[in-house]
Amino acid sequence: MDSLGRPDWAGRLRVRQSELAAANLDGVVVSSAPNIQYLTGFDGSAGTLLISGDETVLISDGRYALTIQEGIRAGTLAPVHFEQVSSRYDLTLVDLVKSRGLRRVGFEAAHVTVAGLRAWRQGLGEVAWVETDDLVERQRIIKDAWEQDVFRRGGLAIASVAARLGEWVRPGRSEREVAHAIERGIEEAGFSKPAFATIVASGPNSAHPHARPTSRRIEAGDLVVLDFGGVLDGYCLDLTRMCGVGSISPAAQALVTAVRDAHHAAVEAVRPGVETRAIDRAARDVLEGHGLGQAFQHGTGHGLGLEVHEAPRIARVSADPPELVAAGMVFTIEPGAYVPGVGGVRLEDDVLVTPTGCEVLTGGPRELLVV
Amino acid sequence: MDSLGRPDWAGRLRVRQSELAAANLDGVVVSSAPNIQYLTGFDGSAGTLLISGDETVLISDGRYALTIQEGIRAGTLAPVHFEQVSSRYDLTLVDLVKSRGLRRVGFEAAHVTVAGLRAWRQGLGEVAWVETDDLVERQRIIKDAWEQDVFRRGGLAIASVAARLGEWVRPGRSEREVAHAIERGIEEAGFSKPAFATIVASGPNSAHPHARPTSRRIEAGDLVVLDFGGVLDGYCLDLTRMCGVGSISPAAQALVTAVRDAHHAAVEAVRPGVETRAIDRAARDVLEGHGLGQAFQHGTGHGLGLEVHEAPRIARVSADPPELVAAGMVFTIEPGAYVPGVGGVRLEDDVLVTPTGCEVLTGGPRELLVV
Repeated sequence: MDSLGRPDWAGRLRVRQSELAAANLDGVVVSSAPNIQYLTGFDGSAGTLLISGDETVLISDGRYALTIQEGIRAGTLAPVHFEQVSSRYDLTLVDLVKSRGLRRVGFEAAHVTVAGLRAWRQGLGEVAWVETDDLVERQRIIKDAWEQDVFRRGGLAIASVAARLGEWVRPGRSEREVAHAIERGIEEAGFSKPAFATIVASGPNSAHPHARPTSRRIEAGDLVVLDFGGVLDGYCLDLTRMCGVGSISPAAQALVTAVRDAHHAAVEAVRPGVETRAIDRAARDVLEGHGLGQAFQHGTGHGLGLEVHEAPRIARVSADPPELVAAGMVFTIEPGAYVPGVGGVRLEDDVLVTPTGCEVLTGGPRELLVV
Repeated sequence: MDSLGRPDWAGRLRVRQSELAAANLDGVVVSSAPNIQYLTGFDGSAGTLLISGDETVLISDGRYALTIQEGIRAGTLAPVHFEQVSSRYDLTLVDLVKSRGLRRVGFEAAHVTVAGLRAWRQGLGEVAWVETDDLVERQRIIKDAWEQDVFRRGGLAIASVAARLGEWVRPGRSEREVAHAIERGIEEAGFSKPAFATIVASGPNSAHPHARPTSRRIEAGDLVVLDFGGVLDGYCLDLTRMCGVGSISPAAQALVTAVRDAHHAAVEAVRPGVETRAIDRAARDVLEGHGLGQAFQHGTGHGLGLEVHEAPRIARVSADPPELVAAGMVFTIEPGAYVPGVGGVRLEDDVLVTPTGCEVLTGGPRELLVV
């Protein structure tokens, strides 16, 4: 799958630059890798971005120099100024801030460590460093038209992988073998890579929400949790489906029914203006009604984007003041119930918030797949 | 492969506790995931460790509760006290520090963000938070007997994967297909997972030190850089080998020869007491002698352990004062030369520093593999 056009990096950077004057800042340093990717397209593991009123400088090291220079030329990266680190990132940044004469510089308080800030302060005694919180994250939370298109294509593609689970989940196969097959399927479906390490949790392992695939072989009577995702044009899709191997116990069947109902209630609760925690409440009420409140040990969902976990959080505890759902948000709905001795069930879809409700991006059957 | 015995978590934690009094601290918070893993065995993605004079508390959330409780019971984790987060990590930590009456608490300045420290300060106005630097990292840099044993077994295992490259690298195969085959081979060799995303960089792509596998099909005349690693009992091995497809150009052959000689010189330079930058110098001198100083854009190596990049750094610029090599360190030796229009070459082995020199952990042939 190829991307359709390019993200509007220039527009995204303009938002950042326009806020500098309002915040009485000469510049702002962006340290978070996904934030840098959002603003410039650069997705290397190391980089720092310095945005001032009339310039954006991407600092990175020799490993990425050729990739960045070619990307800027080809238009696959924003037309930033590239500055190669000579020895240490902090020293190059300090030199740039000095040479540009910046006096009040914002930085990302959630992404700069105490030691990192100390190094900048040592190099730049005269500069005022100003904490900023979640500026780019707030920008990223509402997906623009280009991003929504990526998510629609990605939703179809990950659902097409789910449609093949029956080929891969078989008694006698190990969890790891199934996970490999799914990850191969993810790439065959056009994703650049899995969005995270695929979870295949069978039988007793299914009772661990974050189980990792083991050499355990799938056997009759197992519940199998299959949680997987893919990265398309940088954006993460995330899906969980359930298999039952032959005949499952009545207790396991009760979990399946309860989680299905909780999932349905949560999806129904999504619309602009509601508090994110109301969606979690909707799922939790159903599970509590089935006596499974203690068995649902995680939140109902999380935002998706360049990161597989990003804002908003769909959970009992939300931000203060409570976060409201808004059109353009993309997040997961993934209630679960985990009971040692019985097993675990989770059902997960990705939704795009629309002006009136939501669009489920990850269609296709979501009933228990019996193999 | 199963681990032989267990790491000495109790001994490692004792080192941390013994330093509290000397630093006039009542406790220390460990935030870095690999540092927590080193001290307790817990390798989940989220956790905080609070060490005080007579207690070690592992804070984590509901996703990991069952895994941690079972691990403590089974002895696969250190016998810490587990505290489950009710809503937010920072609030649970604040409550613990209050309930234990700690007044001067150290924290990891390189792993706590400015926003994270702000939250702790807001919850605990009366506590003095004291920056600490690299305490656990300095402990981790010298591998103990248990760790050295893991590295010896891992070195043999990753070399056994390298010995199979001839099965996988073929004209007509895409870089991605080869990367998949290598990653399958890594798991077949007993590793729990690849240590990082496998690099297969062929032809023009080989000139990018950090290339990612593409759909490009390998063809005659290509240089192919193959950089891969595996995780064994939590520890990372890392290896780079080169293939030439049929007959390569004289210019490419010259790169191969120069890098081989640089690699040899660097390995010869490793012994306790020398500055780490002297090892880099040894490799760089050889490449500069071949007129390839500008073509070698990265450092000569990096430490290996629970992280695939950790201390020490084997580079031109080192710490101040310069870091000295010590017995028990494990690091890579990986000089390279990258020339657009010609291609790139890198050759990488892992070494364990011994009292008199070093042991190359990753044996087997390292000549250009002609396919």
